[in-house]
Amino acid sequence: IGDVRFGGDEVIVIAGPCSAESEEQVEAAAAALSKAGAKMLRGGAFKPRSSPYSFQGLGEKGLKILRGAADRHNLKLVSEVMDIGQIELVARYADMLQVGARNMQNYRLLEAVGKSPRAVLLKRGPSATIDEWLLAAEYILDGGNSNVMLCERGIRTFESHTRFTLPLASVAYVQQRTHLPVVIDPSHGTGHTYLVPSMARAAIAAGADGLIVEVHPKPEQAMSDGYQSLNFEQFAEMMAGCAKIAGAVERKLGDL
Amino acid sequence: IGDVRFGGDEVIVIAGPCSAESEEQVEAAAAALSKAGAKMLRGGAFKPRSSPYSFQGLGEKGLKILRGAADRHNLKLVSEVMDIGQIELVARYADMLQVGARNMQNYRLLEAVGKSPRAVLLKRGPSATIDEWLLAAEYILDGGNSNVMLCERGIRTFESHTRFTLPLASVAYVQQRTHLPVVIDPSHGTGHTYLVPSMARAAIAAGADGLIVEVHPKPEQAMSDGYQSLNFEQFAEMMAGCAKIAGAVERKLGDL
Amino acid sequence: IGDVRFGGDEVIVIAGPCSAESEEQVEAAAAALSKAGAKMLRGGAFKPRSSPYSFQGLGEKGLKILRGAADRHNLKLVSEVMDIGQIELVARYADMLQVGARNMQNYRLLEAVGKSPRAVLLKRGPSATIDEWLLAAEYILDGGNSNVMLCERGIRTFESHTRFTLPLASVAYVQQRTHLPVVIDPSHGTGHTYLVPSMARAAIAAGADGLIVEVHPKPEQAMSDGYQSLNFEQFAEMMAGCAKIAGAVERKLGDL
Amino acid sequence: IGDVRFGGDEVIVIAGPCSAESEEQVEAAAAALSKAGAKMLRGGAFKPRSSPYSFQGLGEKGLKILRGAADRHNLKLVSEVMDIGQIELVARYADMLQVGARNMQNYRLLEAVGKSPRAVLLKRGPSATIDEWLLAAEYILDGGNSNVMLCERGIRTFESHTRFTLPLASVAYVQQRTHLPVVIDPSHGTGHTYLVPSMARAAIAAGADGLIVEVHPKPEQAMSDGYQSLNFEQFAEMMAGCAKIAGAVERKLGDL
Repeated sequence: IGDVRFGGDEVIVIAGPCSAESEEQVEAAAAALSKAGAKMLRGGAFKPRSSPYSFQGLGEKGLKILRGAADRHNLKLVSEVMDIGQIELVARYADMLQVGARNMQNYRLLEAVGKSPRAVLLKRGPSATIDEWLLAAEYILDGGNSNVMLCERGIRTFESHTRFTLPLASVAYVQQRTHLPVVIDPSHGTGHTYLVPSMARAAIAAGADGLIVEVHPKPEQAMSDGYQSLNFEQFAEMMAGCAKIAGAVERKLGDL
Repeated sequence: IGDVRFGGDEVIVIAGPCSAESEEQVEAAAAALSKAGAKMLRGGAFKPRSSPYSFQGLGEKGLKILRGAADRHNLKLVSEVMDIGQIELVARYADMLQVGARNMQNYRLLEAVGKSPRAVLLKRGPSATIDEWLLAAEYILDGGNSNVMLCERGIRTFESHTRFTLPLASVAYVQQRTHLPVVIDPSHGTGHTYLVPSMARAAIAAGADGLIVEVHPKPEQAMSDGYQSLNFEQFAEMMAGCAKIAGAVERKLGDL
Repeated sequence: IGDVRFGGDEVIVIAGPCSAESEEQVEAAAAALSKAGAKMLRGGAFKPRSSPYSFQGLGEKGLKILRGAADRHNLKLVSEVMDIGQIELVARYADMLQVGARNMQNYRLLEAVGKSPRAVLLKRGPSATIDEWLLAAEYILDGGNSNVMLCERGIRTFESHTRFTLPLASVAYVQQRTHLPVVIDPSHGTGHTYLVPSMARAAIAAGADGLIVEVHPKPEQAMSDGYQSLNFEQFAEMMAGCAKIAGAVERKLGDL
Repeated sequence: IGDVRFGGDEVIVIAGPCSAESEEQVEAAAAALSKAGAKMLRGGAFKPRSSPYSFQGLGEKGLKILRGAADRHNLKLVSEVMDIGQIELVARYADMLQVGARNMQNYRLLEAVGKSPRAVLLKRGPSATIDEWLLAAEYILDGGNSNVMLCERGIRTFESHTRFTLPLASVAYVQQRTHLPVVIDPSHGTGHTYLVPSMARAAIAAGADGLIVEVHPKPEQAMSDGYQSLNFEQFAEMMAGCAKIAGAVERKLGDL
């Protein structure tokens, strides 16, 4: 994706709010993230929510806000597509399309993003086996799109002190089986702000090609996922810690 | 659905092949199922498959075959919709639309079937909590469609001798929380033919309003899910056993 | 065990309080249970508790109370042994030794009960595979004790609305693999009083050889497990429902 | 334990064979491990095995071999106790007693090691919640033994490509809740040799106070757990990688 390359020496960090909520929020986030070393902005315009009564996202307005902020701060942009009808629209604004965990086995959607010229970030479903996850990636590759990146975001287990259980052994397992880059989502993978930095470091030590992290100017006011978001200061601190780990595994983290 | 009512004194059995494969297969199945006491035919025309290289279904041709056989044998028909674009087509042939486990949190699809005049069978996702399942049903109800039926088909656990683990306590739990009927799928819930009859009986004893069961003229030749399908003789025997259990909980199973 | 035979035409019900708390409590329970059709009394004298600060049982005094009440009401008695040192003592009072779920892989204990003349009830560990459970039974059989009975009491899964998930498919699976009788514990398997009766019926429909159920004169005052115990009236009602299911699978439940 | 202190700046590595098999095997291992920077030797003399027909350990002879090799190579020794009767014997040879995952809720054993002067390594049960694990530690602390160290060795989930799922978020969670040191077992936690080094690095990055790793002179000939053991070369390489990570989180790994 332009000069951002996943799977090489550099560990790439994607960060941003769960949802684009307002121009101010996104602009502030993009500025802070870029400064701290992130290379891509994440942010949802269409949000899949468990309840129909929760905030559902700003739609195209959100995409415009995200694109503008990404451009001003030299960031690439990834945003989620929830169904086939959204692909063209999201692809107009974003550099990478995200297929969310809930849609990992939505095969018509996989086929459709397989025909898009945009790179695709495929999240693992919380109860999908790794084989099912790789077969889902096959649906995209089979459509002709070879820019697929896998994202481990945790599986559902009996553990309830964390939102999901983040199995970092997936990284080495997947790298042995495929050549697709793997990024880790420590935000959904743990569900608690205080657990994100240590699991981000662990992910890089385990060999992950990148991270995708939820960051919000004021997590306590976020319209979704605030309890697992970092604020700017926490993010900058996490990046410094991650850069040291990247060095220890002979990779680098941005210009840090 | 016509004279077939879920949630009353009668336990309703839905049965049929995983996929419509040919006119002969479907006709044979419909005849045998109807004779054995089933009230609805199930059969997929569009199949969600983990691998893009597996058999994907006959499409509209399959729907025509299913509808014809259902009509000849006085059965109602349920068939799966995998995305919004298929709803109108499937609704033209089927009496009930099935939303599969993999799509339980495909919210745009839920909203769309919520606007359909057809009843909807909502399968539980294998890692969905019961609350998430009921919230998914809310997406359909919220669209104005109140004919929603829940289907428990097993959850993913560390047990590997069965394909999924079938938690029958869901029946009583869901009945306490909602008024929606609940049916059990012992075929996917166990993944092995020999386990289906005992779990079908157990489901009725636990209070389920119906069953959905995979039956195939020759399971060993089925293009999908043969290892968990009953043949006609096994199905008839299962029905006889289930009718006795239905009697023991003061319900009835068809005219048996 | 005397005239009580597991694995035959009769479905055997074992019932009683989680712990023996007082002579009055046990006597009242034994009288009510016997009248309602139970054949064995259960009750703990040594309780394995997650916290060292919880009630740990009455010890030998509890065993005496249990034995006396069992004798007065023509019931056999099962009680748990938590370590090797307790075997001789418990075996002096009880007809059957229970190895609890937490001790399923306490191999020295398994070997020791394998040398006891008493029958053994082996509970499945909540994360044990069925193969591990059967291998644990081998430790007992290998010691020369062939009176082993398996008890499925639920596995740990991501489901949190029930205490454990009760996989009734274990019954048919185990019956195919061994000749050991299998009983189901719907009390621990669900963790909620209101779910016990329907799962008890389902267990018998699935082919279980017996049930083990927690019953307490006043569940709301129980020193342990009150939230999953039935009172006497609920138990008698459950037994009536179970007797009908037993009839439907061509077995009988006591003299009901 | 002497000059080996867990929970401080130094990350401590415990390593050794699953079982003590012979004097040659243990001597070779101790020499190699010590040279590579390990501070403690691990090795079982009494092995808990799922099947009664598997190798069960050398007993006291194994303990003597382990102690001798540990002394010759300036290593401390940890070995497992499976029941109360073994405590005195094992404590005569070992510096630290291990309570295995299968015995995490063997409360009489916990109480007994709570009265021992030896430090205790308490492994987490594969289906125990973290709260149950910490309560099990309370049983030991309550007995007066305050030298308790927790060991996360993976939980049972639907993942089958790894033997267990290793939830590294436990480290930060436990450190927030208690002051007990936490070590990670990447050998049982993954079940595959090739996954051990990356998870060992990840554990240190996540903040673990130490590691416990299975190493065998010839893993392919090991009498138990060979598929998850490292050979000496792999261990030395793992140590070099871990030392860099330790540096990146401002700790050190032995003299490396």
